Amino acid sequence: MPVDPSKVVSNLKELRALTADSNGAQRVAWSPVWLKAREWFQGKLKGLPVEHHYDVAGNSWTTLKGDSDRTLILGSHLDSVPNGGWLDGALGVIAGLEVTRCLAEDFNGRPPVTIRLVDWADEEGARFGRSLFGSSAFAGTHTIAADRIRTDRDGVSLKDALRKCNVDVEKIDDAGAERKNAAAYLELHIEQGPVLEKMQLPLGVVLGTKGVERHAITFIGQEAHSGSTPMGVRRDALAAAAKLALEIRPIAKKHADAVVTMGSVKTFPGIVTAVVGRCETTLDMRDLDAAVLASMLTEARAASERFAVEEGCTVEWSKIWSIEPIAFSSRLIEFCAEAIHETAGVSHRLPSGPLHDAAEVSRAGIPTVMMFTQSLAGLSHNKAEDTKIEDLEMAVRAFDRLARKTLNLLSSQESKG
Amino acid sequence: MPVDPSKVVSNLKELRALTADSNGAQRVAWSPVWLKAREWFQGKLKGLPVEHHYDVAGNSWTTLKGDSDRTLILGSHLDSVPNGGWLDGALGVIAGLEVTRCLAEDFNGRPPVTIRLVDWADEEGARFGRSLFGSSAFAGTHTIAADRIRTDRDGVSLKDALRKCNVDVEKIDDAGAERKNAAAYLELHIEQGPVLEKMQLPLGVVLGTKGVERHAITFIGQEAHSGSTPMGVRRDALAAAAKLALEIRPIAKKHADAVVTMGSVKTFPGIVTAVVGRCETTLDMRDLDAAVLASMLTEARAASERFAVEEGCTVEWSKIWSIEPIAFSSRLIEFCAEAIHETAGVSHRLPSGPLHDAAEVSRAGIPTVMMFTQSLAGLSHNKAEDTKIEDLEMAVRAFDRLARKTLNLLSSQESKG
Repeated sequence: MPVDPSKVVSNLKELRALTADSNGAQRVAWSPVWLKAREWFQGKLKGLPVEHHYDVAGNSWTTLKGDSDRTLILGSHLDSVPNGGWLDGALGVIAGLEVTRCLAEDFNGRPPVTIRLVDWADEEGARFGRSLFGSSAFAGTHTIAADRIRTDRDGVSLKDALRKCNVDVEKIDDAGAERKNAAAYLELHIEQGPVLEKMQLPLGVVLGTKGVERHAITFIGQEAHSGSTPMGVRRDALAAAAKLALEIRPIAKKHADAVVTMGSVKTFPGIVTAVVGRCETTLDMRDLDAAVLASMLTEARAASERFAVEEGCTVEWSKIWSIEPIAFSSRLIEFCAEAIHETAGVSHRLPSGPLHDAAEVSRAGIPTVMMFTQSLAGLSHNKAEDTKIEDLEMAVRAFDRLARKTLNLLSSQESKG
Repeated sequence: MPVDPSKVVSNLKELRALTADSNGAQRVAWSPVWLKAREWFQGKLKGLPVEHHYDVAGNSWTTLKGDSDRTLILGSHLDSVPNGGWLDGALGVIAGLEVTRCLAEDFNGRPPVTIRLVDWADEEGARFGRSLFGSSAFAGTHTIAADRIRTDRDGVSLKDALRKCNVDVEKIDDAGAERKNAAAYLELHIEQGPVLEKMQLPLGVVLGTKGVERHAITFIGQEAHSGSTPMGVRRDALAAAAKLALEIRPIAKKHADAVVTMGSVKTFPGIVTAVVGRCETTLDMRDLDAAVLASMLTEARAASERFAVEEGCTVEWSKIWSIEPIAFSSRLIEFCAEAIHETAGVSHRLPSGPLHDAAEVSRAGIPTVMMFTQSLAGLSHNKAEDTKIEDLEMAVRAFDRLARKTLNLLSSQESKG
């Protein structure tokens, strides 16, 4: 039987009514509203021939057992940022549920390979600043040592908050057991950016997630009186930072999909009557190609040093965080392109700037691909986040095609093996 | 008898020992240390044929009565910023005391015109953010309505703090009575900037205080995800602000002595993973020529609007404060130039970027001039603030000459009148 996209849309609306207020979605991980969303999800499993459990990291697993233990995983996340949108994460889980339901029907409750639907715990990291919590525990890339001491803004520790959700942070590594037999991972998500809308395309194949280099850069000049210090003798740390804020743009634009952002500037003493003696900035650089990312980092560093010299300043770099680019499975990328083409008549390939749980799954060596659907005005993490209903429905149909192509591949590998 | 510059230096050192700690001078107006400095000053008047009183705004007046009521005023301020230097303000008061002492001796306690030495109350505005407090009350330019409600960082009101120093803020306008018979005002001060040091000159004639235009400028673009938003579609408020931070420099450099400073930049949301949607900046523009100041303001505003358009942003200007340029008396400028030339062999004329009590006195229509002495490394408002002893001594000798030239002028005008 064909997948029913309107059921996905109506379920998404039901979830929104249950978990949003006038400021948007409030499904922040480990909160009562999030737990309510998960309970609602479990209610949707009634009558399906599936087993459900939470793993030790709080990931929600729904398993449709197949003839083989080899497993196709579909997934995304039900948690949201505070005042978030109705689609970010939820679309992938609820579309995955509909696809699972159809496959169960089509195979009379017993597909050739096992199908699992996962709702990852705390993708957003909105409360404790640790995103991809559940998927990184699953992938074995989580370092709890650094996260154990995290607290929310009310001073509640991550450890205490998770204990209330029956998650013991000391044991989350054991979530790696869920990787057993995993043979492929598929995730449908909204783009959260303006690329597909600009191209007037409903759907896109995600090539992978961009690597990220995130650094704090501080320029140090000389604080001086704004009235008594002639222009020619100033050592203005803001001027050096301003040059870098502008120079990152040509650095990024040399490369098709690269992005570089100066998101924060702080000036010290930061008063109207003083030349800035110290300017603290941040850079966030992303590209799908590790060599491009490395070259942009080198160029930005060289530029910052040149500007520091020009302005009589010094500059210091301090790494905040980085992750390598993660390329998705080339075979699954082809399947995804076919599925989109068959559904929409046209397809496009693009990298993902934001990170996703799929990146963690891919890091664990499981063949992975993501499908994006258009975001209106590129908005996300915002109650204005939206996608045309016709695009959502097309996304569900294309994702169902992708799942069936992947299922066929795993099934044929199984029969050969 | 000749003035004794070494006495000025030893008095300055005595005051430093009494009122500085390891972080610098602590003579913040209305504080116990400031009151101690003023008490110490009064002690230095012993044996001089002078009358002393505080006016209703807390200004300290020491009067050497002359044959005529026409009055030559010498002055500066004993208050300092927290962790300030030993010379800012104190030099002018203590040099003025030595000059007054010499004139009293030379004229056997009765000079041809009256000499008054003033220590203005709260020049710095360090505690309540209201600089030139006493001199503006004297000049009649003070608007207590706006200042009555000021509080310090501990929440103490200006009104309550001043009451403890026997100043009733409701009555400070009456300080205008002290303007009676004032015929000239002279102030010696350290430069607090690097111009004289760069020219290897000990002393300079101050042409006036620059006008100031102080504005808050906010660029509004579109907050966006640093990963999902391609470079080409961003509306980056920081980029527009960075362009303005750099463009103010050529705007200022068209004019010999103009200065323009962006002292504060704030980014919103100001996080590493978001394109800046809102950027708040401040500009401080100064020049001695009102037309130059006006044209710089026009140019900066036009530039900000051009950059806003270029970056897909809007821009809003909001005036913080402004004051017109104040030109000192051309006759007293000539006297000051002569006095410096006779003392140091070479003189130089320069505007003052910082404001001074002399600006308020000049606004009240009293012929005014200031003399600057070199600041090492241009540093001030800092415990590292310093001037070579030989330059300080030369300054005292030149200031004495200036006082005598002015006295002779007033005296000759008196005999003519």
